[in-house]
Amino acid sequence: MSLESSASALPPSHSARPIGVFDSGIGGLTVLRQLHRVLPGEDLVYLGDTARVPYGTKSPETVIRFACEDTSFLVARKVKAVVVACNTVSAWALPALEERFNVPILGVILPGAKAAIAATRNGRIGVIGTAATIRSGAYNASIAAHDREAHVFTRACPLLVPLVEEGWIEHPVTRAVLDEYLRPILANRIDALVLGCTHYPLLKKVIQECAGPDVQLVDSAESCAQDVRGTLTVLRLLKGNPSAKGKIFPFVTDEVERFEAVSERFLGVATEPPRKATLGE
Amino acid sequence: MSLESSASALPPSHSARPIGVFDSGIGGLTVLRQLHRVLPGEDLVYLGDTARVPYGTKSPETVIRFACEDTSFLVARKVKAVVVACNTVSAWALPALEERFNVPILGVILPGAKAAIAATRNGRIGVIGTAATIRSGAYNASIAAHDREAHVFTRACPLLVPLVEEGWIEHPVTRAVLDEYLRPILANRIDALVLGCTHYPLLKKVIQECAGPDVQLVDSAESCAQDVRGTLTVLRLLKGNPSAKGKIFPFVTDEVERFEAVSERFLGVATEPPRKATLGE
Repeated sequence: MSLESSASALPPSHSARPIGVFDSGIGGLTVLRQLHRVLPGEDLVYLGDTARVPYGTKSPETVIRFACEDTSFLVARKVKAVVVACNTVSAWALPALEERFNVPILGVILPGAKAAIAATRNGRIGVIGTAATIRSGAYNASIAAHDREAHVFTRACPLLVPLVEEGWIEHPVTRAVLDEYLRPILANRIDALVLGCTHYPLLKKVIQECAGPDVQLVDSAESCAQDVRGTLTVLRLLKGNPSAKGKIFPFVTDEVERFEAVSERFLGVATEPPRKATLGE
Repeated sequence: MSLESSASALPPSHSARPIGVFDSGIGGLTVLRQLHRVLPGEDLVYLGDTARVPYGTKSPETVIRFACEDTSFLVARKVKAVVVACNTVSAWALPALEERFNVPILGVILPGAKAAIAATRNGRIGVIGTAATIRSGAYNASIAAHDREAHVFTRACPLLVPLVEEGWIEHPVTRAVLDEYLRPILANRIDALVLGCTHYPLLKKVIQECAGPDVQLVDSAESCAQDVRGTLTVLRLLKGNPSAKGKIFPFVTDEVERFEAVSERFLGVATEPPRKATLGE
């Protein structure tokens, strides 16, 4: 759907609804955190598909199927827009979601691509992400669509998510892994590096150290939150009273206790009690 | 069900049926490989739940739910027994599966525990596995049930599966990770170490180097295959003609091409063409 047609079709009360956000697991909490920071008055419903995480090692067909089930869950909760916090889903499933669901769908790739173009000075951009995100070529295509002169160098980094989840944030092993992953793309004299996975902002410090001071990191969570604010403003979907304090309603598909144990580290703010979600029923 | 009642209830043709094997993904191919080696005449139906892999980071409730769906799939294919190749499922779900399904269910934990008791000389046994397997305490309980004097020292090693899947089998990073994981249990003077996850046999060489020559490695895939042969012999469920060459029929829940790309490394023998499985329908 076009942005204009969706805006005119909405009843006046529509803007009071929450924004839906989903991710393959808990990594999308880094996007939720930025959304809550940029749009503090908005209520946010978060779905983490922790029973089937990760998506980044799986096939496009499976990622699209899971993404449709996740979006159905949020749409049934009457969200006014759906933010796809997961880079892998944003890379593969946005057209399928836009076709099937009658709400605005916003991903992380396009805002990240635009932020990278704004950040680079020499037109040489690096992108790191999951195997599925890199394989999709979505960042390459999105950057090329806005800057045909830019050179893009990508690298799949499948060990970074497990390292973050193990809590080895500044561990020598994490530095050694990053050195190996980043060496080939740094050799191409990039000066901007897109963190194309929700977990990577937690490694920002050590990635910056490995990449060196001349490389500007692009956090796709931050650029996504700015993009959501811009789009919802155009659609007149932001709440009338922005000074009100928005609430966060988390749902997960695996057990709630495991979410509670890690959410603080990713999110940094309190939420309503997390609840168990059942998908595809 | 008891072994005796299941044997007497079976029609004569039952032994001609295939053995079912399932795992959270492709790791169970190491068990399939040992089964094919020990029982070369048996047909084997393998299900890898590659769309939802891994199970080892998830909750018992979710692991049990997935395991029931996996077993239903195999039972619908008229297998004469179900081998649970996944340590995490063996650790959490065997009682639930035995209660719900009317076929013999065989896991990897009990054979691994017995093999460890046979291997140790000083009664000090190490066990490594996924977070869920270690958290279950299943190896501790199983070893204690057969040798009340044994001391068991466990360690969850969540980075090893991603390292194997990245192909970093003899990589310096893998050695550094193993050093960190094994140091605390080696300090307890273990002389036997159970490889309590299907992926770990692929790291046998580097694990042996880290553990030193005085520690005997126990491959739960090998001991499981021996146990399956013994149990099916007692149940009179082995094929009449053991010299016939058994076939392997693989099914996966994510795309087939990804299975084909890795199965050779884990399995080492040819299979029938892999097919896509749909669960829970």
